[in-house]
Order: sequence, then structure tokens, then C-alpha cells
Amino acid sequence: MTSTLPTTVDPGKLQEVLDGRWGHVRRDAREHLGDPEFAPVYGETMQEARERISRLAKKLAATGRVGLGFPKEYGGQDDSGGSVASIEMLAFGDLSLMVKAGVQWGLFGGAVQLLGTERHHRAHLADIMSFDLPGCFAMTETGHGSDVQQLRTTCTYDAETGTFDLHTPHEAARKDYIGNAAKDGRMAVVFAQLITQGKNHGVHAWLVPIRNDDGTPCEGVTIGDDGPKAGLLGVDNGRLSFDHVRVPRDMLLDRYGQVAEDGTYTSSIENETRRFFTMLGTLVRGRVSVGGSAGSATKMALDIAVRYGNVRRQFAAPGKDREIVINDYLVHQRKLLPALATSYALHFAQEELVSTMHDVQYKTHVLGEEIDEAGQRELESRAAGLKVANTWHATRTIQMAREACGGAGYLAENRLPALKADTDVFTTFEGDNTVLLQLVAKGLLTGYRDAFGSLDGWGKVGFVADLVRETVLERTAARGLIARLVDAVPGRDDDVPMLDRGWQLKMFEFREKHSLEGAIKRLRKNAATEGMEPFDMFNDVQDHVLRTAQTHIDRVILEAFVAGIERTTDPDAQALLEKLCDLYALWTIEQDKAWFLEHGRLTPTRAKVLTATVNTLLKELRPHMTTLVDAFAIPAAWKAAKILEEEDDRQEAMAARDAEVRQGAEGRQASKESATDLEVAPAQ
Amino acid sequence: MTSTLPTTVDPGKLQEVLDGRWGHVRRDAREHLGDPEFAPVYGETMQEARERISRLAKKLAATGRVGLGFPKEYGGQDDSGGSVASIEMLAFGDLSLMVKAGVQWGLFGGAVQLLGTERHHRAHLADIMSFDLPGCFAMTETGHGSDVQQLRTTCTYDAETGTFDLHTPHEAARKDYIGNAAKDGRMAVVFAQLITQGKNHGVHAWLVPIRNDDGTPCEGVTIGDDGPKAGLLGVDNGRLSFDHVRVPRDMLLDRYGQVAEDGTYTSSIENETRRFFTMLGTLVRGRVSVGGSAGSATKMALDIAVRYGNVRRQFAAPGKDREIVINDYLVHQRKLLPALATSYALHFAQEELVSTMHDVQYKTHVLGEEIDEAGQRELESRAAGLKVANTWHATRTIQMAREACGGAGYLAENRLPALKADTDVFTTFEGDNTVLLQLVAKGLLTGYRDAFGSLDGWGKVGFVADLVRETVLERTAARGLIARLVDAVPGRDDDVPMLDRGWQLKMFEFREKHSLEGAIKRLRKNAATEGMEPFDMFNDVQDHVLRTAQTHIDRVILEAFVAGIERTTDPDAQALLEKLCDLYALWTIEQDKAWFLEHGRLTPTRAKVLTATVNTLLKELRPHMTTLVDAFAIPAAWKAAKILEEEDDRQEAMAARDAEVRQGAEGRQASKESATDLEVAPAQ
Repeated sequence: MTSTLPTTVDPGKLQEVLDGRWGHVRRDAREHLGDPEFAPVYGETMQEARERISRLAKKLAATGRVGLGFPKEYGGQDDSGGSVASIEMLAFGDLSLMVKAGVQWGLFGGAVQLLGTERHHRAHLADIMSFDLPGCFAMTETGHGSDVQQLRTTCTYDAETGTFDLHTPHEAARKDYIGNAAKDGRMAVVFAQLITQGKNHGVHAWLVPIRNDDGTPCEGVTIGDDGPKAGLLGVDNGRLSFDHVRVPRDMLLDRYGQVAEDGTYTSSIENETRRFFTMLGTLVRGRVSVGGSAGSATKMALDIAVRYGNVRRQFAAPGKDREIVINDYLVHQRKLLPALATSYALHFAQEELVSTMHDVQYKTHVLGEEIDEAGQRELESRAAGLKVANTWHATRTIQMAREACGGAGYLAENRLPALKADTDVFTTFEGDNTVLLQLVAKGLLTGYRDAFGSLDGWGKVGFVADLVRETVLERTAARGLIARLVDAVPGRDDDVPMLDRGWQLKMFEFREKHSLEGAIKRLRKNAATEGMEPFDMFNDVQDHVLRTAQTHIDRVILEAFVAGIERTTDPDAQALLEKLCDLYALWTIEQDKAWFLEHGRLTPTRAKVLTATVNTLLKELRPHMTTLVDAFAIPAAWKAAKILEEEDDRQEAMAARDAEVRQGAEGRQASKESATDLEVAPAQ
Repeated sequence: MTSTLPTTVDPGKLQEVLDGRWGHVRRDAREHLGDPEFAPVYGETMQEARERISRLAKKLAATGRVGLGFPKEYGGQDDSGGSVASIEMLAFGDLSLMVKAGVQWGLFGGAVQLLGTERHHRAHLADIMSFDLPGCFAMTETGHGSDVQQLRTTCTYDAETGTFDLHTPHEAARKDYIGNAAKDGRMAVVFAQLITQGKNHGVHAWLVPIRNDDGTPCEGVTIGDDGPKAGLLGVDNGRLSFDHVRVPRDMLLDRYGQVAEDGTYTSSIENETRRFFTMLGTLVRGRVSVGGSAGSATKMALDIAVRYGNVRRQFAAPGKDREIVINDYLVHQRKLLPALATSYALHFAQEELVSTMHDVQYKTHVLGEEIDEAGQRELESRAAGLKVANTWHATRTIQMAREACGGAGYLAENRLPALKADTDVFTTFEGDNTVLLQLVAKGLLTGYRDAFGSLDGWGKVGFVADLVRETVLERTAARGLIARLVDAVPGRDDDVPMLDRGWQLKMFEFREKHSLEGAIKRLRKNAATEGMEPFDMFNDVQDHVLRTAQTHIDRVILEAFVAGIERTTDPDAQALLEKLCDLYALWTIEQDKAWFLEHGRLTPTRAKVLTATVNTLLKELRPHMTTLVDAFAIPAAWKAAKILEEEDDRQEAMAARDAEVRQGAEGRQASKESATDLEVAPAQ
């Protein structure tokens, strides 16, 4: 790990590793989505964007690349992992198209496929794949986005007519932010409280027509438009309200719960909460796709900022004719390189997540095996955690990349504004990141034995008592390797070199374990506190609990990076990844230096060495910045950033002219007269 | 400072303090800018936005509120501080209008006023104020934004014709991102290298016509359009190139440098660099206005997020019927309250800066006194530092506020998307924040004795030798008070209560002083290192140097907050501000805990106490969140955020309906069935 780097590394070798298990899907996308029609467009009105995206969705469907995740017998490929990989590739293009596709084939199609039964599949899957039946995933309500078990929409069975009565009791119960609702949707999978024979059986889903063939709303359905948004102008988000709409009995997506003609309710899952979350658990793919798409958008932003930083020059170095390339400034490197390292780390973690998801879903949905509940819970937790990490990394990094390109980064023609605006909602949809962190924490506290339940469930002394558990960290990928690396580190680790991967892993593990144990201790103490409100027992430690979740996610990501390096066969590519992994690990520790100092895992002296080591890594990685973005293999046609085309020529033209001037009599010598950092142009 | 808070505080009393020295300007704006036409609009095309903003600029000019900063003899009021206050108020409305006004009356008008002489004033100031002469501030070039002393546009005097030849030698020298250029500008203040009698005298400014009365470009002028941007759609940014354009001699804005008919150059300031920065120094107001406007936009975002968080509910508490108001969650408080405290701190620092600027400019430009150069340098450094702090705080906080409002925060109708997009460029225009931090650091290293020079200047051993200086921190406002508070703290401060203001100030001071001394030590070491490239001597410590600048800015802000509290007469308002100041100070220390642990100013135990203390402050301030945003006194008409109008009614309607259901037979009991944090709705 302390090896010095080869002068050049073949980006193709890195790309192979990054492409991974679904490399064939990624290569196929690079070859066939080059069609300029798929390139992002700026300066459109909302109407223009919506029409273009609907047209492209239809065109995309025609390529047959949208069916990967659907069953073979209906023209799909039973390749759930492949469907995520193809969404990730789509995310290098227009993000409105990616989200539109996610809504149609991921959320809507996925719900029909996974919550519905054969009659629903026979009737609709083909039309869904061909986009002849555009549909909505109508779960979120204006009043309930995070707490969807508390949706207020009701669907009450009436044995007389053999139909359900779907109703929106008040404005807060209207369906909101629903993709495909404002313009294209013909049907919607509507989530509501199932009531039959006077009993509420909790949230279920129905397939409900919302528009007639002429595009007018169906009787009793009111459709609203969410109007312009920060970004994703091409996605027609809207609102749906139902005024006692009659829904035929067989439109209930009844895989997990059935209602007989006489209104008798049956389900293979007794517990209502367990049933609800089993249903939702099957839909985990949506969250995995958002994380992956955020990753792609971030790579795009880094690709633009790194290339621009390689040709953009500002301020002359003493005695030098030409000005300094901004990627040579230490502080610019501190902005770009740790972000780049994090994107690599997240890429490997995402790849691992997609593989796990694929295998779990293949077992249950294709081979029809029993659901392994703990495994399912852990998958959901992993998906939640990486969605949080990927989307917050995207928000931070795209913002940084925009600023790193200065005024040029603010122009739509340079792509970054759309990347920022389109991905901005990722941190709060498919699960609000803060709420998802809580979900991850919950899993850690219960060891996934019972990750059901709720905030108030946390208040039950019984639950807290359960927390008397040994906190053993389950290891992720490359278990053997990681165990070896960690065990090789001597107990007294004050003088272990920081580039020792084992030491880095050990620091991540220690922080997670210690933080988790501390949270449990505090929770139990509060539970034992006379007169403390159950809500306060948990709210009092909420920051600590969420922090614990974060440390867990960090460890999962680092271990995935280590596993990815292990899979790398090319020695040069491997050496570069090792170096990048050092940067990711040490930079992450540096970000949380206070904690390690506070808990005696870093001495003040070591803490200073840490920062120096990070700066050395930046110097070593500087020459490889371009290689690292080349390896993302983003087709040039997809970038659509003007600065990348022009800046280099401009700089060359200026250099040539400057050389003339330096010869010329009237010219002042750039090398004599100094550049300055004193004043900066007000470019308004 | 450890006092407990009154149960309610009158926001009006707080508002008085915040309104400050230019309260009359702020009150006047609240009363007269209520016109709905000034309210922000969303969903427009770029063309529509540009036309509306041009119309509003004209209308604004008609109110006579734009002349504050101009000389009395031309219809102005010689009130430079008041002009900033009025821009800050304008920033609560449509930010495109604020920027358009800043370009016309701040940058363009200000340059004519401050760089020009009587003949320019007589000829143009009236038309500039009335917007009959829309103009541009054409400084930035595509190739030079930060290093404007190196602009490549040339303006060469020809004694034969008695005119200047203005020329753009290559594409990188074109003027770029220039407000008012794409559509409205009739004239431009163009910055270029002044060459006469074969000698280059550095950058000067000329008043140059760019459009004919029929709107067509003048001969030799090429006008381009920067097109759609991330935000500020109403501002017509464009590009200007000049092909040997003849400019009459008297169009040179010749306050600081003159060219005689025969081409002889004269100036009261010998040194070219010093002359250039004296010219630019007079334009400091633009940077001060951007910082203040960022502050207003941030207050608006906080106002929206705080009010929404007070009515938005999610997840039921055990045994409670109604769900929990999200402002009651500790982690939500950790997002909103420190940001709110920082906005208050920055407000007081900004007020202090504006006052200083006003007094300096009044002395030199109205009373005609000599420029106090050190004072001017310090003012520029202060303006740079607060611009950085205000604009980065805006970017972070508006982003956070958007996320704190969930999906609703992503809808244009709720205002936050525009606030984010419009302010986003603030971090890189009027000076790139990173470059400005370097400017601040430069001032600290040289103690403002010689804050001229350049990056390469830093390489001169002579300069580094100069760094052998005693680093005494000049104190800002309320010098006496702050000295007393600090001196009252015992040397061994391990057991001083953290709520002791003196201890807080001392920590800020210690960090700045120690960091500055460390930077100097490292710079001198590098300068003494055999064979180290001058550029590397500085680049090697760039992160440390910029960090030092940041610690300096933090101290300036805290001291301004303390001074503001001192000015507060109402005891309740004062008590609340004290508490808020505790939060600002301790939260800032918490953010940099690692440094204080590393340098032995916090023990691990104290570090834990610190976090606990911050959480206690959050609990104490929670009941006053609304009061704190009420005190911003933002007219309701300016907010234009739908959620603020509707969310409360929706929640009430739902509560009423829920109560019915709980009576009804078919209803399940919200209090028995638990809410959950397990799953979150994919609202796509």
C-alpha cells in the first residue's frame, strides 16, 4: 500500500473493474445510447421538456432495453441487477428521462409485477414495457411522505357491489409529487388503507385507471399539476384525489393480501405491520436505483470539473511565462480528489449492493424460494444507507464542481446547473435521507432481528431491554481478507503506519462499535429514567443514533472498496486503486478527527501526521486525475459541456499571443509584472 | 449569559436591533415595495424573465430609491451605506431584480461615479439613475476572472487621431458573464490595459457605447449571449468583443490616471499595481452588497423552513393522538437553529462592515479627505471575508432549508428552488470565495502594511522575512468590552463554564493567533528550503493559510455579535440574543473540535460537555424559533411560498377527521397502530 505509483495507468483496465458484473449492460448502453436525441437539452419550457421526455421514453421502450427486470415469460429477462445497471447508465444522460423511466418501469411496473398476480401480469406487463400504458406509483400523500403506514386514503370493500370504494378524505390525503400523473399516466398503483367487513387491514395497493382514452380524468378522479420544480422539468409530477371511486375487486394487487367476494380478508402474513413492510421490501430496487443514478451524475460533474481544472489557468508563478493550471493548487486538489476517491468507494459499494439485491430477488421472485427475512431487512438497510451516502455525496460534490468551474459552471451550456438541480430531490425522495439514517440505526440497534416497529416502538422498555446484545459487526464483502488485515494490526496502534489498510479498517470498525455501544447505553439509561416521555428517550439521543448509522455506512463502503481492489487483476490499476483507497480512508478519518482524538485513537501528533499524509496522497494522485475520470468511460456525446470543447483552444491561443507580446516592444512582460490574488472581477 | 429565557420575547424589539443604523431605509422598503409586481415569479422563460426585470428596473428607478449612493449634486444622497441596506431589502424579493439593480446602480453607475470625473458625472449620472442609460461593468474576461490585473483587452492611445484603439486580441480576452450586456446595455465601463507612447500603464477603465439607439451593436462591437443559467434568468448576461473600436480620449475614466492629447500619461499614484488596486478599492461596495444580499436570501429560506417545521407533523409519539411537529426533533433543530444563530451573527458583522465602509467612503468621496491606505486595505479584507462567510452560509443553509421541507421544498411554488439557484453564483462572482480567502490571509500575514502584490510576490524571501512580525490581533467592535471579557478568564481555562462569553472569545482568538503564527513559521521554513520552487513554498501551506483566514473571519463575526448584543436595550431581546450567541460560538467551536483537542484547548471530557451544552441550548431556543424569524420582519407578500399558506389548514383538517375516525367503529386507532420510520414513500 506504500508502493509508489506507475507514471501512467491504463484507464481501460480501471474501467473493466468499475464495469463489473453488469459490464455487458454498461457497454451495450455506451454503444447504443449515443443517439444525440438522448443528449440533455437546456433552456426548454416545462411543456417542451415534458413532451420531449415522453417521446424519448417511448423511443427507449422501443429499444427493448427497459424490460431487463421483468419476468422472461412476459418478454423481460428476470435480471433485476441489470435493470439497475441500465438505469445508472441512463443517468449519464438526461436525468428527467432516467426518473421517467424509473417511475414507469421501476416503480409502477415493478409494483404491478411484484405486488400483483398472474392476471395483472397477463393484462398489463406488455403494455407497461412498451409505454403504451404509462402509469403512476401513487403512494406519497401531501400529509404523509416519510410515515407511509399512516396514509389517510381509504379503500373500502362493498360486498353488495363486489367493488372497492377508493376515497380521499381531506386535502392532506391527496396523492402528491406523483410522477407521470400530471400528463401521461393512464393508470396508477394507488396505496390506501384496505377496509373490509368493518376492519382496517392496513395499507395495500390497487391498480386504478385515472385517465380515459381521450386523456380526460376518469370519473371521480381529480388530477392536479405540481408545476415547475427546481429541476427534472421533463417529469410530469402531479396530484391525485379520489372522490368515492369504484374499483373492481380484482384490481387489488393481491399477492400478499386477498379479499374474497363476500369481503373476507386473507393473507399469508398475519401481522399487519410485517405484511406492509414485506410488500414494500419487494420494492427496494427503486431506492437502489436512485443511489446509483446519483453516483452517475456525480461522476459526470467530477469529469467536467477535473478536465476543466486541467486546462484552466490563473495567476502566474514567479519567473514562469504561463499561468498555473488550477488543478495544481493544493486547495483545488483538496476539493476534487477526495470527492473522486469517495465516488470510487461508493461505486464499489453500490456494485456490491446491486449484486446482493439481484441474488435475493432472483431467489424469491424467480426461483420462488421463501423470503429470508433477516437477509431482506439487511438488504433494505444497506440500500437505505447507500442511498443516503450516494445522494448527499452527489449534492455536495456537484455543488463543489459547479464552484470549481467558476462563472462557467453557472451557465446551463456547461451542464453543471442541470446536474445540480435535477439530482437535488434525490436526498429527500425514495426516502428522506435523515429518516433513512434512522432506519439504518434501527437495524443496527436490533441486529436486524426485528427491524419492524416504529419510533414509538422504541419507547417500549421491552425493546430497550432487547438492546442488551453483543454488538458484533457483521462483515461485508471479502470477509476473510478484511479479518486478516485487521487482525494483523498490533493492539497498541499508535505507531502503525497510517497507510496500513488494516489500521484504517480497524479505525472504522472501532468507531462504529464504540458509537453503537454508546447509543445503546444511553437509550437504556433513558428508558430507566423515571418520568421520561418515551419520545424523549429517543429524541434525546437522536443525533448520536444517526451518527452511529453514518459510521456504519462508512465502514460498509470502505470494506467494499477493499473488496473491489482485491478483484482487480491489472497490477497498475490495482496500485492506483490502493492509493485512492488510502485517500478515501484517511480523508474520512480526517473529517471525523475530533471523534478519534476524543476517544484516544489519535494522539495530537498522529492527528497532524494524518493531515500531512492526506496532502502527500494528493500530490501522488495529482498526475492521475484525468485517468481516474477517463475510467468512468462517459461517452463524450453525453457530456454536452461547452467548456470542455473550448477552454483548451482558448488557453493555447492566449499563450501564443502572449509569447508574441513578450517579444513586441510595447508589451509588458507578464513574468515581470505580477499576477495578483488581491482583487477579483465582479462578473455580474 | 447563563440566564434562563423569558417565555416570550417581543420580535419587534429584536427587529429594532437588527434594523440598525439604516433602519429608516429598511422600514421604507417594507412600506413601499409591497407592490405585488415586485414579488418573485416562477415558471417563466428566460425571455419573459428578462423583459419583466427590465420593466421592474425602470419602475424601481422611478421610485427614486436607487440614488442613495450617488452624489447629492446629481440627485443622489451621498449615502453609500444606505444604498447597501436598500439592496439588502431588494434581495428579499426577486433576486434577478436585485442583481440587475446592483449591475446598473452599483457596478456601472458606481464605476462612472468613482473612477470618472466631473464631465462624466454631468453627462451621464442622471440617465444612469433613471435607467435611461442602462450600462455594463465589463471587467471579467473568459480567460481572466480572478486575476484581473492580467486582463488581455488592450486600449492603445493614438496621438494622431486623439483617440484610443480598444481591441480584443483573442477569444480568451472577450468580456464574459457581463450583466446588462445581452439585452439592455447602451454603454459599458470597459477595463483594459492602457497603452500610450509605447508603454503599458496597466488596467484602466473607459466608458464605451456598445449599442446604437436602434439596439444594434455599435461598429466593431460584437455582442454575445451567455444564455440560460442555473438561476437569475432575468439578468441578461452576455459577452463583448471589440475589433479595434475607436474611443474618444475623454471617455477614459480618468480620476486616477490621465492621458494628455499628445499621449503623455500622468497619475497621482506612481506604482502601477498600487494604482490599479486603489481604483478597484473604491468599488468595494459591490462585494459588500453581495454578502448582504446573500444574508437576506438566507433569512428568507430560514423563515420558510422554520414556519413549515412548526406545522408539519410526521410520526406519532407513543400514546399521543397527533403526530410530532418536526421542529421538535433534535436532529431537525440541529439543522435549523445553528444556521439561524449564524445568520444573526452574520447580520451584525455585515451591519458593522457597512458602517465602516460608509464612513471610509464618506470621508474620501464626500469630504474629499486623503485615503487612509491601511484602513482601505483592512476594509477590503473585511468585505472579502464577510462576502465569503455570507455566501457560503447561504449556499449551505438554503440547501438545508430545501431538504428540511422535503418534496414541498423542491416545488417552485414554495420559493426555495429559486432562492438556491439565484444565489448559487454568489460564491464565485464578485470574487471567487477561495481566492478571497487568500486575499484575507494575505492581509493577516502582512498586517495590512503591504497587502498589494501577488501570489508570486509571496515567493520573495524578502516578503517572507517581513513575516517576522508580532501577530497582535487587532480588535474589532466593542474593543473595550471584549478585552474585559477575555481578560476576566483565568489562564487555566479547563474549568471555566462554556457559557462564559470571555472563554468563547478567548478560544476564537487563540485559534486565530496560533494558526497565523503556524502559517508564518511554515512559510519561512519553506522559503529557507534549498531548491524549493517559490510557487511550492506557498502552495505547500495553502490549506493552512486559508484555514487561518477562516478563523479570522469567525472571530470578526463573533465580536460583531457581542457588540450587537451590547447595543440591545430591551432586556428580554438581549437575553435571547445572548443565548443565540452562545449557540453560535459553541457550535462554531464544535465544528472545529478536532483543532481544539489537537491543540490542548479542549480535553476529551470537555469536548463531550461541549456537545451536551449545544443540545441544551437547542432545547432552550426551540420555543423561540418563530420569534427569531419574525424579527427578520419579512413582509408576507414577499415570501410567496405556498406551503406557508396551506400546510397549517391541511394539518388541522386531518386532525379533525382523525378524531372522527377514532370515534367511528371502522377506524383503527392511530395511537394503537404505530407510525414507522421503516419505509419511506418513493415520491417520484
